[in-house]
Amino acid sequence: MAPTTFRVARAADLPTILKLLADDAVAQARTGYTAEVSPSVQAAFDEITADPNNELIVGEQDGQVVATLQLTYIPGLSRGGMRRALVEAVRVRSDLRGQRIGEALMVDAMERSRARGCGLMQLTTDKLRHEAHRFYARLGFVASHEGMKRPL
Amino acid sequence: MAPTTFRVARAADLPTILKLLADDAVAQARTGYTAEVSPSVQAAFDEITADPNNELIVGEQDGQVVATLQLTYIPGLSRGGMRRALVEAVRVRSDLRGQRIGEALMVDAMERSRARGCGLMQLTTDKLRHEAHRFYARLGFVASHEGMKRPL
Repeated sequence: MAPTTFRVARAADLPTILKLLADDAVAQARTGYTAEVSPSVQAAFDEITADPNNELIVGEQDGQVVATLQLTYIPGLSRGGMRRALVEAVRVRSDLRGQRIGEALMVDAMERSRARGCGLMQLTTDKLRHEAHRFYARLGFVASHEGMKRPL
Repeated sequence: MAPTTFRVARAADLPTILKLLADDAVAQARTGYTAEVSPSVQAAFDEITADPNNELIVGEQDGQVVATLQLTYIPGLSRGGMRRALVEAVRVRSDLRGQRIGEALMVDAMERSRARGCGLMQLTTDKLRHEAHRFYARLGFVASHEGMKRPL
């Protein structure tokens, strides 16, 4: 197995990242699903790249992007002014699952978040994703909260 | 009942906001709990104020701060490049609960988030906060996700 290296995403990675995000039954069932680099997706990418509190990370094997996640570093007044890291849009290429690439991706994200002074990492994961719950539990996450969402 | 008005927090509100955050059994049980304006809390406040993607909101009655929440606007590639709003640290002064101030606070937050182009609002709420779950459900939130957290 080729080693996976992690880095901040570049503009050229965007089509592959969108393919990873789309390669997922839960995502495909949603309204607004698209694998296309539309102007609004490009604008979101540009905003993430320009924002020091947002990082889009990719995992690479032999020069190919095989995994991704987004980190948002959030300042807050609670818990003594503790900064937290929010994780969104975690994906590993479907034909490469079960090789602990996701685990390495998350460990890399935790290291980045600690380096940015975060004392907590949090995420929400669809209640339908039972395998994901076990994955995050193995990484030390506790399902202590309800994740509630509402369209606007 | 005095009407509640909502605005972005100012530096002078910080001690009252911290009292609101501390006036809570779940928060008090946590490590790192403090009602004091420590340097790290002041630094967090300054960072929130300077960051266009973070807003600390207060609700005011007769010139007194009685409610607060934090909004984080998050760009993302999923769902066609949809921006989402994350809500944290929602509090209403304990002696004023049951007067729908929290509802007005959340409706104000939804309006701000829509104005910033967000198509989704999300939050996590401790599984111990049963009353909060009913409150958010009344406001249209669905507990579709597990909220998972991990210290770093």
